[in-house]
This record gives sequence, C-alpha cells and structure tokens, in this order.
Amino acid sequence: MTATKRATTVLHTRAELRAALQGTERPLGLVPTMGWLHEGHRTLMARARAENATTIATIFVNPRQFNEAADYQRYPRNEARDLAICADEAIDFVFAPAVEEIYPPGFDTTVSVGAVARPLEGAARPGHFEGVATVVAILFELIGADRSYFGQKDAQQVLVIRQMARDLAIPTEVIACPTVRQPDGLALSSRNVHLAPDERAAAPVLRRALLAGRARWESGERSAAAVREAMWEVLTAEPLAIPAYVSVADGRTLTELDRVIDDDPALLSLAVRFGATRLIDNEPLP
Amino acid sequence: MTATKRATTVLHTRAELRAALQGTERPLGLVPTMGWLHEGHRTLMARARAENATTIATIFVNPRQFNEAADYQRYPRNEARDLAICADEAIDFVFAPAVEEIYPPGFDTTVSVGAVARPLEGAARPGHFEGVATVVAILFELIGADRSYFGQKDAQQVLVIRQMARDLAIPTEVIACPTVRQPDGLALSSRNVHLAPDERAAAPVLRRALLAGRARWESGERSAAAVREAMWEVLTAEPLAIPAYVSVADGRTLTELDRVIDDDPALLSLAVRFGATRLIDNEPLP
Repeated sequence: MTATKRATTVLHTRAELRAALQGTERPLGLVPTMGWLHEGHRTLMARARAENATTIATIFVNPRQFNEAADYQRYPRNEARDLAICADEAIDFVFAPAVEEIYPPGFDTTVSVGAVARPLEGAARPGHFEGVATVVAILFELIGADRSYFGQKDAQQVLVIRQMARDLAIPTEVIACPTVRQPDGLALSSRNVHLAPDERAAAPVLRRALLAGRARWESGERSAAAVREAMWEVLTAEPLAIPAYVSVADGRTLTELDRVIDDDPALLSLAVRFGATRLIDNEPLP
Repeated sequence: MTATKRATTVLHTRAELRAALQGTERPLGLVPTMGWLHEGHRTLMARARAENATTIATIFVNPRQFNEAADYQRYPRNEARDLAICADEAIDFVFAPAVEEIYPPGFDTTVSVGAVARPLEGAARPGHFEGVATVVAILFELIGADRSYFGQKDAQQVLVIRQMARDLAIPTEVIACPTVRQPDGLALSSRNVHLAPDERAAAPVLRRALLAGRARWESGERSAAAVREAMWEVLTAEPLAIPAYVSVADGRTLTELDRVIDDDPALLSLAVRFGATRLIDNEPLP
C-alpha cells in the first residue's frame, strides 16, 4: 500500500493518452471519476495502486449521463484540487479530456443495457445509464485497463457497467469497492457539497433507514414489504427528506423481491432529495 | 494476390479464438460474414489477404439483425462449403461460433447508431442496424483486427459500422470494397439463392434503375426528384418487382437530397421485393 511516489502525468488528449500508455508496465488499474474527488475516490485509488503495476484515473464530467442540464451545470468541479489528490495518491496518469475529446463532432452512438438498467436510478433518471454505459465503453476502449474500480455506493451503476463490459467482450475487470462514509453514516458523494447545513445534518437519515431495514431482516423478517416499511418509516420521520424510492431487490437483477431469502443476495437501496440535492445509498444483504 | 496456401484453422469458441490469435503476425485483416459465401466475399478475402500478414473470416448468422424471425430461419447456410471457400482463399482463421458464444445467457446490451442508421434499411427493418452494430462491436472486440472488409453493396451498413467504431474508439479500420456483380448486373447476395427463375431473370432491374438514375445525372440533371423519377420508371416497368424505396441521399449522412451537387458524394439506392425475397443495391455518385 505504501507505493514509492512517482510523478503524476496529466493527459488531455487521446494522442497523449495513447503515447503515455504505450509500453507501461501491466497490469494497469483504472479509476474512472467525475472529479470533485473525496475519500471514497482515494480508497479506489489506493486499491488500484495496491493491485496494479500502473494506475490511471480519469476526470470527466460526462454530459451524457445527466438527464437534467441544470444538474450537469451545477456538478462541482475543481481540477487543480483533483490533480493534487491524484498526485497525493501516487496515481501514475490522470486523463482529463475535454468533452469533444470523448465525443468528437458528429458523435452519434449509444450503448444501452437492458433489464438491470431499468428500475431505480434508471427509472428516476431517463437516459442516465445509457450515458454511463456509453462513456465507460469509450474509456475502457481508450485505456485498455486490466482492472477498473467503482464505488459500491452506486450499486446499480456497477451492475450496468459489468453487464456492458461482459456483453461487449471488453476485457477490463469491473471491481466494486465498499462505500466510504462520514462518521455519522452519510455516504461520501461529490453532491454532498450542495447540502445546506440543516440538510447535511438530516442526510444521515439515508443510512439510518437502510440499517433499520437490515435490522428488521436480521430479526428474522423475510417479507420484502416489511423491510421496505421499516426503511420508509425512518425516512418519513425526517421532515427535510423527500424520498424518491425505497427498494428491496434481487442483488443481481434488481427485480423487486417479495421475499428476502437467506442465501440470495439482495440489495436495499433508496434515493432521497434534500431541496435540489438528490442522494442515493444502499446496503447489500446478507 | 497469390499467397502461399496455408492451412485454414477453424475456431468455434472465444477461448480457441484467443489462443489462436495470440502472437499471430500483424497486421490482422478481418472479413465478417453471415456465410453462404459468394464471389463478393472472395473479393473481400483476397483484399484482406493482400493487405495483411494474417487473415480471419467470421461466419455467424446473427439473429439480432433479422427483424423477422422467418427471414432468420430461411437465411441460407452451408458451413462445409463456406469453410472450403475460406481455405481456397487461403484465409488463416475462420471463427464460426454458436449463437451462445456471441450472446451468452443473460446477454442484454445494445449498441445503436443514430441518424445514419434511421432512413432506408433502418426504417424498413426496425432493429436491424442495432443488431448489426452490436454484433460487429463484439466481433471487433473479440478479434482486435487492424482492418475489416465489408461490401459496398450494403452501403448503409458500412456507414453505420464506421460510425460505431469511430464513436466507441474501436481501432479496427472499416474498409468498403466495390460491389461484385453477375454479368447481367445483379449484385451478388446470399439472398439471390431464394429467387425463382423468373424473379432471377427480372432482378437485374435494380442495376438498370440505378444506371438510369446515374445517366439522368450525367446528362446534367441536378434535381434529386428527377433522378428518383428516372429510377422509379425503370422499376415500375418490371411486373415482378415490388419497390420498397428509391433514394437519392447525401453519401455521408444519408439525408435525402433536393439537389445533387457535383462535388458532394451522393448515394442512389433502392430496395425491391421479388415475392418473399428482398434485394438492395446502390450506386455512389459521382
């Protein structure tokens, strides 16, 4: 884990990327990000560094995965700070392309994943996962990494990307890393910066709701409706929280469950708005 | 063009393909086919052989690009004959996978191209080009060829595949080769085998209509409507021909034209049914 610090090289174009990666030592580990890096990203980078001879992070706020233009505009950006964090994490290369470098003029192709992309975030944010699958397919192709690292906080995103890479025969392995949290349980997210102080104080309700669902299950309850109810009760007790959905789904297909069977992986997940800021979190079972 | 004959190796699985391609001499040239090989495919293979150190052909009747199940079922197949042709053309490797080898259980990803895939064949055959773009993305990824060879007879297919490969940053070059024809002008197609004798005798009307359009243009006519009219007149004079469309479009975007400007590439194209058999052909201008 304590790699020798090497200088971080920042790349802006495909040509620079191609030249830089030629002949680098393998395996190559990739951490794709939208910037505004936090401790969660640092965990991904540390794992990538530990498991690979060479590491690369990407910083690209992908316009195609924002279903609302305003959300894209207000997404927080600070490239200088992000590059300093990558250097501090001893990442070898940072690819920070302009939008036209990923989507050249006339770009007109979409990669879409079926069933697993449809519920939850897919239903709430039309076009979101097409944007994700498309940009990740391009980044995987451009970079040719052996392994890629994503946060488990975006659980559905991990499933969508894994399905896409498997189906399109892209050999980059997709690795999910545990969600990193604040001491009060709030999952780290670049969007947390938008929370007003009272919203920030209320935001741990997501984690409390998920733990209430888990507790109901651990107490022997197997009805998914009862587990949802336990989560819902916690959320509705918080006046600032505007719940979007509460889900108890199959952990592989994201189909909503009737019964939570002991041996089958399940995923408790939820989305909640605080004012204009939308947060998500999840808890895998068992 | 007269390559030393080497044995052709037939591969059925991804694992066999990976093992076979490891360490082969580059550049690698790919000829993707749906089998039932004819002189047109031979021309593609000869060109691939002339331009590359190693050659591979694929034989895969792709169920996802048939918008009608009956059309998929009746598509002609003869693997033994196809393999003999590949051997005769001194192709190094033939990849002839089962459907589940390309689309494993749970497959659920679609690659779709926008504007250039929408008119003409895209409008007539819903889902067709999504099937094409998806399977070619997978084959390109599995094979990693430097160059791929397609027939200009499927002009829109060439544009769709080129757009897909460019957008997804797949480095396989897409090369279109001139249409090969029978002496009477009929473009070679695996579907020609379905024509009854009287339909076969009538089928050169596609070529005659295209040449009538070209002649009208060469005589100085620049109105696209007049060029379409010239093609239409020839088609409607043939009682067995049931025209589906007649098009005079921009050669890059396939947008229908008002005027055919001298320096801009244009594409005359048409689709015609003879009984249950649907044929297409085209003529690029200038």
